[in-house]
Amino acid sequence: MAAEDGIVTACLIIIGNEILSGRTEDANLPFLARRLNEVGVRLADARVIPDVEDTIVDTVNECRARYDYVFTTGGIGPTHDDITGASIAKAFGVGWALNDEAHRILTTHYQMTGAKLNEARLKMAYTPLGAELIENPVSKAPGYRLENVYVFAGIPSVMQAMFESIAHTLTGGAPVLSRTVAATLPEGTIAADLGALQERYPGIDIGSYPFYRAGKFGCSLVLRTTDETALDAAAGELAGIIRDLGEQPIFGEEGDTT
Amino acid sequence: MAAEDGIVTACLIIIGNEILSGRTEDANLPFLARRLNEVGVRLADARVIPDVEDTIVDTVNECRARYDYVFTTGGIGPTHDDITGASIAKAFGVGWALNDEAHRILTTHYQMTGAKLNEARLKMAYTPLGAELIENPVSKAPGYRLENVYVFAGIPSVMQAMFESIAHTLTGGAPVLSRTVAATLPEGTIAADLGALQERYPGIDIGSYPFYRAGKFGCSLVLRTTDETALDAAAGELAGIIRDLGEQPIFGEEGDTT
Repeated sequence: MAAEDGIVTACLIIIGNEILSGRTEDANLPFLARRLNEVGVRLADARVIPDVEDTIVDTVNECRARYDYVFTTGGIGPTHDDITGASIAKAFGVGWALNDEAHRILTTHYQMTGAKLNEARLKMAYTPLGAELIENPVSKAPGYRLENVYVFAGIPSVMQAMFESIAHTLTGGAPVLSRTVAATLPEGTIAADLGALQERYPGIDIGSYPFYRAGKFGCSLVLRTTDETALDAAAGELAGIIRDLGEQPIFGEEGDTT
Repeated sequence: MAAEDGIVTACLIIIGNEILSGRTEDANLPFLARRLNEVGVRLADARVIPDVEDTIVDTVNECRARYDYVFTTGGIGPTHDDITGASIAKAFGVGWALNDEAHRILTTHYQMTGAKLNEARLKMAYTPLGAELIENPVSKAPGYRLENVYVFAGIPSVMQAMFESIAHTLTGGAPVLSRTVAATLPEGTIAADLGALQERYPGIDIGSYPFYRAGKFGCSLVLRTTDETALDAAAGELAGIIRDLGEQPIFGEEGDTT
């Protein structure tokens, strides 16, 4: 999908057995999806994969060729099950070595906290050769970037801080704009008119998401596009469709609970 | 990964622009992961993909060849953006046609509710040819199975009911057992001993998940295996490691917030 119609695409690779076992619920995908929208990058794909070297290598190599940006989360801590960094070095065919700058950051950090910079913690100062560090203002051990692959921690507060460290460096297309119009109508009642609206506005991504509230069926209709003029026109037509069906349109914003 | 060491594997394909845009947070992965554990099936992979026919076709075909079971969620409603069913028919190279049994179910349902079974709603009675219906006790419009691919709704209450309708038909391996032992120790302090424990128990998947609570760093150490004897032995050794480091082990179960 990369570069299609000037659209800038991204993929998120969530690395961790704990997500696939159900122990931990991922919170990084929704954050990244929303923040990427704001900088004009479309999250086009997300994968959840286990802490298995071959799987990480293959997935990273497939996705970095296919998308403009790849973000990984998880697996960069000090324990034996943290194998993301070494696997990414292998994916790029480069060495995995102590990074002097990361080493300085961790040395300073552990001197201040009084903990010992032992062999396990020192692993967090290793990066694939050629990687550029990404600041971690929360817990210091840095993330890093290698070409179009950004390696983040899995802990949401740390992942979010790392993303904000690099967000200004991303080159997006036009930001995706959205309008949400809700109606107390079952999807099946409005579906035909909605399909016709989609045909009249092929450049708008129109989604319908049903809800059931206070004993009534309704749907949130979400319009997404980079073209504000078309968006306003389609939202206006949609409001008219809802009124013609005997209900009042409820205007909201993306992210509403409706 | 299918059939490796007698392990039964599954993949979840989450279909929906609304997940990739950040509008809707997926809740089906954690549910499916936990329930599959209980029936001895390992969720080995999950994908989040947009409502794009080619992407659905390619992903379904890749995953149904690679894993024992494939589950899809989302895209089986009445609106124009619900294209999962037709895409899966295309993936299998079969027709997409009105299913008599589904037609009867919807006819009865809409007669009872008084809503009109219009063309949009009738779409929910279409299935790939050869599909076997999956009961939907919540909102009636059925899911279906074609070979090893199970097509579920995206709404969590409906998805869960559909899964429970078919759970007894899944053939799993030995259930994965787990023990969680937490310690008020930073990961970096226990990492070396933990790595050595992992080497002594190569058949156990040992994960470390850090937390920060009441001003102290800690980690939840999760041991997963089908071998209960090894699990008990390793959990006992782990408790000893924690005591040797001057802390008390905290025994818990998978799914604790620790």
